[in-house]
Amino acid sequence: MSKQDSKNSKDRKGAVEVLTDINEDFSAWYVDVVRQAKLADYTSLKGCMVIRPYGFALWENMRARLDGRIKETGHVNAYFPLFIPESLLQKEADHVEGFAPEVAWVTHGGNKELEERVCVRPTSEAVIGSIYSKWIQSYRDLPLLINQWANVVRWEKVTRLFLRTTEFLWQEGHTCHRTEQEALNESLKMLEVYERFYEEDLAIPVLKGLKSESEKFAGARSTFCVEALMRDGKALQAGTTHDLGQHFAKVFDIKFLDEDETEKYVWQTSWGVSTRSVGALVMTHGDARGLRLPPKVAPTQIVVVPILFDKTRDETLHYCAYVLECLDDYRVEFDDSDKTPGWKFAEAELRGVPLRLEVGPRDMKNDQVTMVRRDTGEKRPVLVEDLDRIVEETLEDIQRELYDQALAFREERTRRVKTLDELAAGLDELRGLYHAPWCGSEECEAAVKERTKATIRCLPFDQPEEKGACLACGENAKWDAVFARAY
Amino acid sequence: MSKQDSKNSKDRKGAVEVLTDINEDFSAWYVDVVRQAKLADYTSLKGCMVIRPYGFALWENMRARLDGRIKETGHVNAYFPLFIPESLLQKEADHVEGFAPEVAWVTHGGNKELEERVCVRPTSEAVIGSIYSKWIQSYRDLPLLINQWANVVRWEKVTRLFLRTTEFLWQEGHTCHRTEQEALNESLKMLEVYERFYEEDLAIPVLKGLKSESEKFAGARSTFCVEALMRDGKALQAGTTHDLGQHFAKVFDIKFLDEDETEKYVWQTSWGVSTRSVGALVMTHGDARGLRLPPKVAPTQIVVVPILFDKTRDETLHYCAYVLECLDDYRVEFDDSDKTPGWKFAEAELRGVPLRLEVGPRDMKNDQVTMVRRDTGEKRPVLVEDLDRIVEETLEDIQRELYDQALAFREERTRRVKTLDELAAGLDELRGLYHAPWCGSEECEAAVKERTKATIRCLPFDQPEEKGACLACGENAKWDAVFARAY
Repeated sequence: MSKQDSKNSKDRKGAVEVLTDINEDFSAWYVDVVRQAKLADYTSLKGCMVIRPYGFALWENMRARLDGRIKETGHVNAYFPLFIPESLLQKEADHVEGFAPEVAWVTHGGNKELEERVCVRPTSEAVIGSIYSKWIQSYRDLPLLINQWANVVRWEKVTRLFLRTTEFLWQEGHTCHRTEQEALNESLKMLEVYERFYEEDLAIPVLKGLKSESEKFAGARSTFCVEALMRDGKALQAGTTHDLGQHFAKVFDIKFLDEDETEKYVWQTSWGVSTRSVGALVMTHGDARGLRLPPKVAPTQIVVVPILFDKTRDETLHYCAYVLECLDDYRVEFDDSDKTPGWKFAEAELRGVPLRLEVGPRDMKNDQVTMVRRDTGEKRPVLVEDLDRIVEETLEDIQRELYDQALAFREERTRRVKTLDELAAGLDELRGLYHAPWCGSEECEAAVKERTKATIRCLPFDQPEEKGACLACGENAKWDAVFARAY
Repeated sequence: MSKQDSKNSKDRKGAVEVLTDINEDFSAWYVDVVRQAKLADYTSLKGCMVIRPYGFALWENMRARLDGRIKETGHVNAYFPLFIPESLLQKEADHVEGFAPEVAWVTHGGNKELEERVCVRPTSEAVIGSIYSKWIQSYRDLPLLINQWANVVRWEKVTRLFLRTTEFLWQEGHTCHRTEQEALNESLKMLEVYERFYEEDLAIPVLKGLKSESEKFAGARSTFCVEALMRDGKALQAGTTHDLGQHFAKVFDIKFLDEDETEKYVWQTSWGVSTRSVGALVMTHGDARGLRLPPKVAPTQIVVVPILFDKTRDETLHYCAYVLECLDDYRVEFDDSDKTPGWKFAEAELRGVPLRLEVGPRDMKNDQVTMVRRDTGEKRPVLVEDLDRIVEETLEDIQRELYDQALAFREERTRRVKTLDELAAGLDELRGLYHAPWCGSEECEAAVKERTKATIRCLPFDQPEEKGACLACGENAKWDAVFARAY
């Protein structure tokens, strides 16, 4: 707390502070960037954060993109209750075992003790299952394709801004299908939606695959995931989709009368992406100077900074007004505050604004602006008459460049090893994603974790024909697994 | 519960049911409409509702409109924690007295009892105040204009779908200002934003005014409100803005260094509109056949119903495809299900779709469609070549017509009385809004409520010069007050 307080008092000076060196202490750099760029901050309640206006504007843009993709694939939004009665949560055995240790329990409403305590939803399979059982009667009601944007609570012991907080925001899809195959297809389709959201909107390359049994969702039949690699070489689970089979349908009695006049249980899926994705964005693209935001989701795409001198002040501001008119199609900020240009440049860099346009007397004389890219630092003059076109092309190029850099980084950090010794030595030398053959046993998975702290991030969909011998036990491998240390 | 269950089993037949007669039992009609139009439904958890996809799509449109208005007036969105530690809630005496009896208390996180119990936010002044005190240092940080879209919980004894539920969705604005006047202006400005949202987007006329002391927000200096009149003659508080003065600033220590180098407490406001507004929409515009939704927020603005005969089936569907192409700018549903046209008409009416286009062989022959308005029932042929223009004009006209009808209804139901006897007799004869002179004392306010069940809905901003004698005590009146029975 005292460390936070002292940082806080530095914030009060209103200057851009020096960030912790990203190469020296990535964790401290991360917290510095999130707090100094005013994405989010701690609150007095342990593990709960406040998402500040700049961070929330970013989340709103991300949410709008993902919401559009979810609706395009035929889903509709709804809103289900925050509270789940204990008896409902307990119906699915694996589910309660997975979540009960980390839920918040409400025991009193006003001054009265509740007859049955209720938990704040950690995820909504149970409460939604109990509701779906009333809505679904016939095969005509299927598929039921519903998504919810909501807050959820998991009482975490160790928390970190965006990555692991007691309360977080997310979307959770909950669907019901007539056949096993349809449900499987849905969980794979939504994984693809997540992949495209991450790659096309956030410029974050992700690896798709299946989770091992020990890492799957409590109550699911199979969990699929998209995994991303952060700049410190640690993996981050960026989104998951679950093929729930009929586990929840059976305990919540979600049945339908099929065309053949027999009663059957539905097949379900669920899938979610959370505010964690904001953390992924920071840790994928950030650099020594702060955030680098992909233009598609950046709250501010362009900052215009006037370079003012007493003599030409009015003229320059007038010229800026003209420049701003050319930028109507973009999210633009005009920084005419009384800070120095250098201060403004540093602040825009810290906040990850993709493009900066400097407008001074010389620019004015030449009917141009000076354009600076946040991703590469490249600086060039652009004629105002070309501005709209060049800005559009450059924003697209930045979006692509951020993706390419992240992909190149991931490729550099992806290796193939054959034994546990190799894996341990590799991880000690350079953190990243390690492909290795695995027999499929939980014992070997645990042995790897024990020795290296690495977990199986996913079993990629692309599997080699020859898998070789398990890295831990030497038996025939069933899987080419990807191991990494993870958030 | 058994009544609900039996309704539920009727729902399962999938047919449009007969609604309770709106003139016979307005309350039962309301619940019928909300449930049969699939806006929302009860859940097994008392007082908690589920907002179904159709209701949520309506809410999303309403939210987008209001959010746009809030942002246009210079506010930004953020997200604050769901939980408030008991010690924070207790800091403002009136506030805790007002809210403590109805909050949900979390006492356990996972298996551990919390050191200090936390409540689920019933409103966020306390938690936001504690955060603002860290963010604000200088007059340069003011005004701070932040809004939050969130769920809140108030443990209600008697609940009704949308109108009063244990959990509800809302937006709550929380602003800080340098001067008393600025804060007052803000609370009046946001009241105007609410007025325009209700009148222009929802077609609901509202009365603006001040709340009496007994009706004001717990912890506020003054509460302003917009009040609407429902079809059963009962008033509904549609939105409130609060001039908080420095009450919360003092207990949460929200200070700033002013330009004159002295430290001062900020002046605050807060303001909110909730999912209650969906209930207001139903009860303002609904009729014997169900909902009537204003085109600006209707999830479906136009339903196209093909009238199919075996001989001309393919031709008609082909023609419909052409008609649909002309309607690209609208939210359109094409109902080609295998239900009968009559069933489809009734369902579209129940769901309040503003315009219905019937497309049969005769329409096809005449290059026309048959357009039916939900608000007036008017039916007319429209040439396809004129369709885009006529639809646009008609949707605008429906929006206006719904407002005009609601305003005419309110005017019919607004009366002026001089004495408590007159008020009681008036309310017995016809429920509505009753203007009456009031001395300003809580005793007289309570006496009126005791005798008539009517409360002061607001003290309108337009006050007559001569106010006469208080309806209850006969002393000189300070206010022209509006009394009504209310939700």
